Amino acid sequence: MIVEEQLIDAALRSWKSNADRTEKFFHALSEEQLQQEVAPGRNRLLYLWGHLASVSDGMLPLLGIGPRLHPELEATFVTNPDRSGTTLFTASAIKQAAAEIDRELWSAFTKWTATEWIAKHTAVSDEDFVREPHRNRFSVLLSRTAHMAFHYGQVVLTKPRE
Amino acid sequence: MIVEEQLIDAALRSWKSNADRTEKFFHALSEEQLQQEVAPGRNRLLYLWGHLASVSDGMLPLLGIGPRLHPELEATFVTNPDRSGTTLFTASAIKQAAAEIDRELWSAFTKWTATEWIAKHTAVSDEDFVREPHRNRFSVLLSRTAHMAFHYGQVVLTKPRE
Repeated sequence: MIVEEQLIDAALRSWKSNADRTEKFFHALSEEQLQQEVAPGRNRLLYLWGHLASVSDGMLPLLGIGPRLHPELEATFVTNPDRSGTTLFTASAIKQAAAEIDRELWSAFTKWTATEWIAKHTAVSDEDFVREPHRNRFSVLLSRTAHMAFHYGQVVLTKPRE
Repeated sequence: MIVEEQLIDAALRSWKSNADRTEKFFHALSEEQLQQEVAPGRNRLLYLWGHLASVSDGMLPLLGIGPRLHPELEATFVTNPDRSGTTLFTASAIKQAAAEIDRELWSAFTKWTATEWIAKHTAVSDEDFVREPHRNRFSVLLSRTAHMAFHYGQVVLTKPRE
């Protein structure tokens, strides 16, 4: 691999390892366990699972891959806080949606060349991108990886202490 | 900037923004507030601050920059869990150590070429690196950025809800 491919490979491994540990964590839980809060009065696990799925879904249009696959998640898990009385989703609905979204993202991620990775994302105009070339797809990948890690750090607080 | 420099620039921005928000969070707290736990029975804020500082310190030898600047933090904040009765550190001692470590890392980070970034880190042998070229400095940067985000997600749980 040439240098730029190695840099991208490292970022994809980081995304994947964060996505895998998050998925593994949620898959091991019952509907009842998913009702736990990460700390008193804070978000429930089910909310954070749906939140991560919906934020990933938003990466599809943001990165120019295509439309959201599950736009129905956004109101409940992004626009509104937990327990807002918005539509209820079961764990199995979130699980299926998250898996579809992850597959769609990964399929694009593993095809792009380095030049495609540093192309602008769709939320920045051509003019702004000239001044701010760091607003590219690769930056989105890194910031969303950190976002996943941020919430993963929260959800593991519900694990019994070793 | 050429492609590989843009990829590195994105990763450095991600490291920096995570380091900055973490520092800003801890700097705003009193010694008393730093005694708060992120969740009942879980790590205290002071412990996590020292933990992040010591893990960053360990990046100095791992990345071949030099020896640890604050090896005295490791036993208290990495090897042992919180409240182990090991040496006590004040917030101001951690603050100063963290700032020194961050400066030292940043100074190296901003000098390396792309080829230096994909060079092996010091915890992998030459033979293993041939088979596993992803065990490079850039991967360490990304995994430590995610590690910071992981704990930042926890510490912000102590903020009053908006």
